Amino acid sequence: MSTTLVTGGTLVNATGRSRADVLIDGEQIAAILPPGSQLLGTDLRHGVDRVIDATGRYVIPGGIDAHTHMELPFGGTNASDTFETGTRAAAWGGTTTIIDFAVQRTGERVQDGLAAWHDKAAGRCAIDYAFHQIVGGVDDEALSAMRGLVDEGVTSFKLFMAYPGVFHSDDAQILRAMQVAGETGLLTMMHAENGPVIDVLAQQLVEAGSTSPYFHGVARAWQAEEEATHRAIMLANLTGTPLYVVHVSAKQAVAQLAAARDGGQNVFGETCPQYLYLSLEEQLAATSEEWGDFEGAKWVCSTPLRARAEGHQDAMWQALRTNDLQMVSTDHCPFCMKDQKELGRGDFRAIPNGIGSVEHRVDLLYQGVVTGEITLERWVELISVTPARMFGLYGRKGVIAPGADADVVIYDPQGHTTIGAATHHMAMDHSAWEGFEVDGHVDTVISRGTVIVDGGAYLGRAGHGRYVPRGLTQYLV
Amino acid sequence: MSTTLVTGGTLVNATGRSRADVLIDGEQIAAILPPGSQLLGTDLRHGVDRVIDATGRYVIPGGIDAHTHMELPFGGTNASDTFETGTRAAAWGGTTTIIDFAVQRTGERVQDGLAAWHDKAAGRCAIDYAFHQIVGGVDDEALSAMRGLVDEGVTSFKLFMAYPGVFHSDDAQILRAMQVAGETGLLTMMHAENGPVIDVLAQQLVEAGSTSPYFHGVARAWQAEEEATHRAIMLANLTGTPLYVVHVSAKQAVAQLAAARDGGQNVFGETCPQYLYLSLEEQLAATSEEWGDFEGAKWVCSTPLRARAEGHQDAMWQALRTNDLQMVSTDHCPFCMKDQKELGRGDFRAIPNGIGSVEHRVDLLYQGVVTGEITLERWVELISVTPARMFGLYGRKGVIAPGADADVVIYDPQGHTTIGAATHHMAMDHSAWEGFEVDGHVDTVISRGTVIVDGGAYLGRAGHGRYVPRGLTQYLV
Amino acid sequence: MSTTLVTGGTLVNATGRSRADVLIDGEQIAAILPPGSQLLGTDLRHGVDRVIDATGRYVIPGGIDAHTHMELPFGGTNASDTFETGTRAAAWGGTTTIIDFAVQRTGERVQDGLAAWHDKAAGRCAIDYAFHQIVGGVDDEALSAMRGLVDEGVTSFKLFMAYPGVFHSDDAQILRAMQVAGETGLLTMMHAENGPVIDVLAQQLVEAGSTSPYFHGVARAWQAEEEATHRAIMLANLTGTPLYVVHVSAKQAVAQLAAARDGGQNVFGETCPQYLYLSLEEQLAATSEEWGDFEGAKWVCSTPLRARAEGHQDAMWQALRTNDLQMVSTDHCPFCMKDQKELGRGDFRAIPNGIGSVEHRVDLLYQGVVTGEITLERWVELISVTPARMFGLYGRKGVIAPGADADVVIYDPQGHTTIGAATHHMAMDHSAWEGFEVDGHVDTVISRGTVIVDGGAYLGRAGHGRYVPRGLTQYLV
Amino acid sequence: MSTTLVTGGTLVNATGRSRADVLIDGEQIAAILPPGSQLLGTDLRHGVDRVIDATGRYVIPGGIDAHTHMELPFGGTNASDTFETGTRAAAWGGTTTIIDFAVQRTGERVQDGLAAWHDKAAGRCAIDYAFHQIVGGVDDEALSAMRGLVDEGVTSFKLFMAYPGVFHSDDAQILRAMQVAGETGLLTMMHAENGPVIDVLAQQLVEAGSTSPYFHGVARAWQAEEEATHRAIMLANLTGTPLYVVHVSAKQAVAQLAAARDGGQNVFGETCPQYLYLSLEEQLAATSEEWGDFEGAKWVCSTPLRARAEGHQDAMWQALRTNDLQMVSTDHCPFCMKDQKELGRGDFRAIPNGIGSVEHRVDLLYQGVVTGEITLERWVELISVTPARMFGLYGRKGVIAPGADADVVIYDPQGHTTIGAATHHMAMDHSAWEGFEVDGHVDTVISRGTVIVDGGAYLGRAGHGRYVPRGLTQYLV
Repeated sequence: MSTTLVTGGTLVNATGRSRADVLIDGEQIAAILPPGSQLLGTDLRHGVDRVIDATGRYVIPGGIDAHTHMELPFGGTNASDTFETGTRAAAWGGTTTIIDFAVQRTGERVQDGLAAWHDKAAGRCAIDYAFHQIVGGVDDEALSAMRGLVDEGVTSFKLFMAYPGVFHSDDAQILRAMQVAGETGLLTMMHAENGPVIDVLAQQLVEAGSTSPYFHGVARAWQAEEEATHRAIMLANLTGTPLYVVHVSAKQAVAQLAAARDGGQNVFGETCPQYLYLSLEEQLAATSEEWGDFEGAKWVCSTPLRARAEGHQDAMWQALRTNDLQMVSTDHCPFCMKDQKELGRGDFRAIPNGIGSVEHRVDLLYQGVVTGEITLERWVELISVTPARMFGLYGRKGVIAPGADADVVIYDPQGHTTIGAATHHMAMDHSAWEGFEVDGHVDTVISRGTVIVDGGAYLGRAGHGRYVPRGLTQYLV
Repeated sequence: MSTTLVTGGTLVNATGRSRADVLIDGEQIAAILPPGSQLLGTDLRHGVDRVIDATGRYVIPGGIDAHTHMELPFGGTNASDTFETGTRAAAWGGTTTIIDFAVQRTGERVQDGLAAWHDKAAGRCAIDYAFHQIVGGVDDEALSAMRGLVDEGVTSFKLFMAYPGVFHSDDAQILRAMQVAGETGLLTMMHAENGPVIDVLAQQLVEAGSTSPYFHGVARAWQAEEEATHRAIMLANLTGTPLYVVHVSAKQAVAQLAAARDGGQNVFGETCPQYLYLSLEEQLAATSEEWGDFEGAKWVCSTPLRARAEGHQDAMWQALRTNDLQMVSTDHCPFCMKDQKELGRGDFRAIPNGIGSVEHRVDLLYQGVVTGEITLERWVELISVTPARMFGLYGRKGVIAPGADADVVIYDPQGHTTIGAATHHMAMDHSAWEGFEVDGHVDTVISRGTVIVDGGAYLGRAGHGRYVPRGLTQYLV
Repeated sequence: MSTTLVTGGTLVNATGRSRADVLIDGEQIAAILPPGSQLLGTDLRHGVDRVIDATGRYVIPGGIDAHTHMELPFGGTNASDTFETGTRAAAWGGTTTIIDFAVQRTGERVQDGLAAWHDKAAGRCAIDYAFHQIVGGVDDEALSAMRGLVDEGVTSFKLFMAYPGVFHSDDAQILRAMQVAGETGLLTMMHAENGPVIDVLAQQLVEAGSTSPYFHGVARAWQAEEEATHRAIMLANLTGTPLYVVHVSAKQAVAQLAAARDGGQNVFGETCPQYLYLSLEEQLAATSEEWGDFEGAKWVCSTPLRARAEGHQDAMWQALRTNDLQMVSTDHCPFCMKDQKELGRGDFRAIPNGIGSVEHRVDLLYQGVVTGEITLERWVELISVTPARMFGLYGRKGVIAPGADADVVIYDPQGHTTIGAATHHMAMDHSAWEGFEVDGHVDTVISRGTVIVDGGAYLGRAGHGRYVPRGLTQYLV
Repeated sequence: MSTTLVTGGTLVNATGRSRADVLIDGEQIAAILPPGSQLLGTDLRHGVDRVIDATGRYVIPGGIDAHTHMELPFGGTNASDTFETGTRAAAWGGTTTIIDFAVQRTGERVQDGLAAWHDKAAGRCAIDYAFHQIVGGVDDEALSAMRGLVDEGVTSFKLFMAYPGVFHSDDAQILRAMQVAGETGLLTMMHAENGPVIDVLAQQLVEAGSTSPYFHGVARAWQAEEEATHRAIMLANLTGTPLYVVHVSAKQAVAQLAAARDGGQNVFGETCPQYLYLSLEEQLAATSEEWGDFEGAKWVCSTPLRARAEGHQDAMWQALRTNDLQMVSTDHCPFCMKDQKELGRGDFRAIPNGIGSVEHRVDLLYQGVVTGEITLERWVELISVTPARMFGLYGRKGVIAPGADADVVIYDPQGHTTIGAATHHMAMDHSAWEGFEVDGHVDTVISRGTVIVDGGAYLGRAGHGRYVPRGLTQYLV
């Protein structure tokens, strides 16, 4: 096993920063040393295999993206990133762990879904990976199978209040699944949108000829998100179980989460980069030579982009500051325009839902540090510490401390990142972030002790990444 | 300079815990090492001057009590602990830093107040100390002097909405002081009780013959605290400055803080052990052979104890969990019953206000871990990490990391602490906590690399403690 | 047509009271005259057919009970009061108009349901009556039929979020029905309880052997009411339509209504006498020689009785004062213990839901005046004025003014009412209000100019009551 | 005594409307008769002295303006309307009762203040009048004198949290005054702005050269109003007394009132026409040839106009709909530009505070009916019914019922009113409402049975108006 010393940098964690060196021994962090690595008269720089100079840069625990959908079958096609391409892109962007979603549907066995996703991922990932379990068909058998998930290292599962006929759970199903969560310690994740209501509105819009991508956002009104968020909170209250709401985009949903948290309930919320930066108005305005008024399809995701005039984006940043939202994941679910998004020309309901961002999360959030939206420490907390704690990885991931996996990112605040389809590494024919200019740049990425990104070079390989079984959430109060 | 290795323990910080050893070199932390302290083939246990075995115990940054009043002149007497006795008692209890309050009153110069407190403390403290500045007479000269405080390492000041004629500032004074805070980065601390209203109620009670200690709490109604808390928040909002409310005891005041925080305002709140554990009902019931119905005087403090039937104590614990309160300080302000508290026999208004707890904060809060009110990580955050961040000490204090002061406590979760006047080290003839039994015990206390408490032995000395100039608050969002 | 003069009494309406005489000419109010009825030199007492001396008593518009279920088929049996017995009992209690519910179920035509209820009521009622329409099966045909309801004088309809498989509408159905409400002016009434969730909990209780009537209330947790109330509010918000929530019993549901009202939404809430006076604890304690621990079945209604320890009853009274609740109806749905309630021995789910109170509403609410919960004016507003305005009857009903129907009650504040099965006039073998003693008494009841109750004598007849087509709600802001 | 019959009109009150005739006998309402005034075979139109045809028009109780300041000494000058000119103007505008403010200042006797105002008004008023008492110097003598006010028919008093050195009461004074209110039933009215804070801000603005009228509004920030409103609410809560907040203009203050009301507290709020229609932005933009950038002085009032961009005006209308505000008074306090407003050229602090609107309240609010902001019934409630109930006049005023004073306005919804200095009847050299066009017009005004305005003719006289002693508030819940 080789040893590496990261020297001269500034370590940043959730509560502060310090000048210190980091010694990596094999796959793990061995020690945190004083700058210069002099210890009891010894210069440790001379005993290691490799010294990485991090002077002027931040040394942070590797990013953890807790919400990705590699190869997800959806809307008659598959998300365009495989575990191989998607995790490689993630690595480029400073993410060293993803938590993807295994899928069970009505009539399928939970175990089979999980096994299938293990098959997809095994031997193909550039970085470590873990799984949540989607339970798309809650019945007695599924509930029984859920009881075995914790032993498999899958300590969270996701239900959908949207997508009737596909993933949707009704309230009785949600209640019963939450009861199992209460017994097992599983964390319930919720796609909180009132799907039945949205489907009526969407159908009425299409019948009225309002078929362009913009109307996807019109149909998915904020009331549908606020309502479902509140309903999920109440079911969690009734069952005495914690709740994690995915991809929050409406300020009114944040208000529901904040009120529940003020009341002492263990409810958590995640937003995504698109809800911080993009808007419904831009989606309406988007039109291009190639795709015409269908250009906005690149931003079709659920929950949808929200109106900037209503202040949702500012509210998301504020909630990240106040900890009314605790997480930023990507909900990475990439689809190409060609052959995929374009399935929904003439009917926005047929546009595969999803945006690809797994490569850009660390950079896009660092931009919030640059603009003063969040502190440097909050950035690290958001990209790594809280995801690790929330999903039972902390100690092994999410921290630079002796014994932790040596997942380390060296981030250059003087660097610069230009985002676009020509340069990104995701398997997409476009970028939802085309032209975004971000101050800051991922310089070096170390995964379990191995340097997999070094400046402009990718040194990783498919299969380096391992499955990481997770413990129960470590974030409850 | 000597070296010490703390080995075999569990390091705990605000976000998690890990098995690791801590190397101390001189007065500072040098490195965090793997359990067993083997590094690159070397056994570091053999190169150090002292090895402390922390097996089975928690290794945590030393406690920081951000609110003490040693030797405070109040109500015609002085708080009974000198800096010497008070800091020694603090050390016994696992606290390695206090932040005391220098006092300026109307007609006095701020600089003189600060100098006087430096004189009181210098050469006498067992542990490190810092100062907030009380500004009890806000006028042009005081405002001007406040501008020099940051350079003195005094980066916070306290105003009083209570105590008309003594410390009280009216709203115009508060506004002007907050404006100076906005210019300088000073953090405004507020005693938030409507003093003029309380004084009317207190006078009416005394005139009606309701003179026993219990009526202290009746006069200081929750509305007076809620109102002042809201007023302080609004003045902070108007001036765009952060606010720190001291000794919060009413659940309605917490609700005001929570609402402001939900709205994105930088407002913070501190409660004290007495508001977590003691109640107005107990104060009413307190009577003893020696002191008769005056026994409750031992619990006369401001803000007062609150009615348990109204749920204030539970609300304080909940707010500590939800981070609607961020801090627990002692407001250590000890007075003996004899000659001091008894000044108020026959008129509760003349009872010196204060409770002595500086020795017990770490233990009393650990009891919250035992009873499940807070997590182990939250305990460490409350007793050390957040006080350091809040008051500009983090990095030097509040963390175990290379370069930080070696203020370390080794805490035994299997230990036990019985509190009482017979055994405590504070200069008090009674204990507000008489008979409290706490699971857990402070085993070893290291202050800047020196072991000052070792099991049952006190090894410290007056004058070891140094003044610590503070930077600006590191807690803003 | 005969003329009647009510003289010497105190007229009370929603905003105040005055000493005045009331002249009735035929079926309508003709004039409001000065006390003594002297007008331009004429003593009008001599020109009328009948003079009723109301000295010392209140003269008020007849009670309007906006929520009754005469002869309702439910749970395999029928509500025990027919339109004949039920309206006669209502008359005894000072109610001169009821609004009952015609029922449509899945697979039935709305028109047929309405026609059936017209058949049940026609020629049998002692007092005037109107209908809401229950739409228990929302589909295209039902939605189309709803468009014709306003022309029939049925300007409100009720949906159920409870009772899956019986009356339940899912959110898509509710949305579409509310859209029709928006087009037509129909007022949406909602039974707001999350039925699917309740049914799971109820089944689990029964499976666990918790089968007694008390567990009916346990299964119908407040969270299920709060959640559904919020959901209904959000769907109303989304469709821009007003909402009327029936039989509110949980304080948390009231809080949802209040928040929506504070935000300017037209949402209204009704509570019932049982939620003001009775409690879950009493239901648990109820046991009798005849019925044993099944005695509590007499209080099985939905929403259920709530725990007094949680303060729901006080919250209902407060909300009546603050106008966060605007209405008190009975939800009169009587079932005998024998052969009806007892269907649920061994399984609370089979107990027919309902309490009979149509005879007691005016008295029970007057008790709130006696105890100081509400003012005299608010009493009149609650029992008559607001029901008339809410449901489009005002002008004809709900007011004593020229041209209004002469529905007048003379209420004796010095009277006394003892409630019990031995003396009540409802077709029930028990009373939910057995032994209640109420200060105040209905002396005289005039329906469309005819005295139908005169002291202890019933002078009415089946068929006197007429169907009253209603206009659109007059209560929107 | 003469008799008058108002025939053919539509009577409107707070809960509804009806076609009815009104018989006036002497100074009082005698009867409400059917349209056509046929009664028991007699045509009453032939027995009266005067018949007024109100066909097509609304017949409403006369307006009650509960907040006027005739001849108020303020800022070194006097409000420009005397009781003679001001009440005449009021009459022109459909107002038949004003409640003005007698003034006591520090060092003066309350009785003397009240006597002085009686002297100013007696024999000079065109319409009936009553008094509130300003207590500008709360001390033992004033508190004692307050106990006599109810017997004088003065059942409300006003305190100021603004204007230090002039009217300002500190919190101790407010508390003691509220305690007297609790003992006597007096209603506490509050000018809720934090004066000490405003004065600091104002002085700083002037020192910075920001002296134009616009900065009056900048200095009086919404936080100062919100804070004081909350403080007043809490003091009312502490003393268990009702509270009436005058001239509310900030939406955040409304939110405080709404929250307290939701909690069951008897707190009430009044806004004024200027806060419904005018804005800070318009004040900033106001400039004229004659007055240059001082033109905005015409809109200098306290509380100030608020920013339309922040939504305050919409919030006021909404609160009128939701009954979170119950009242609209004018706060009529007229000053001419010449010699009066212009005292503040170069220093906005010296501009006499006040706007003259007593003539326009009924019309300006009717415009809210035209634009759909409020219903016709709510209009009548706001202009007459609630003022009467709030201030203990109901029964005698505020209602058209036998025995009530015959204060009747016949309002033509087809009429039109153009407002401007050239045509108004107030003693002002300008109008704050110059150029406002209002649909609707006051046709006929009857005061205690006497027609004082008849179409375009003024038939009133100084001295017709009488002092009306008031009872305790009739609006408490």
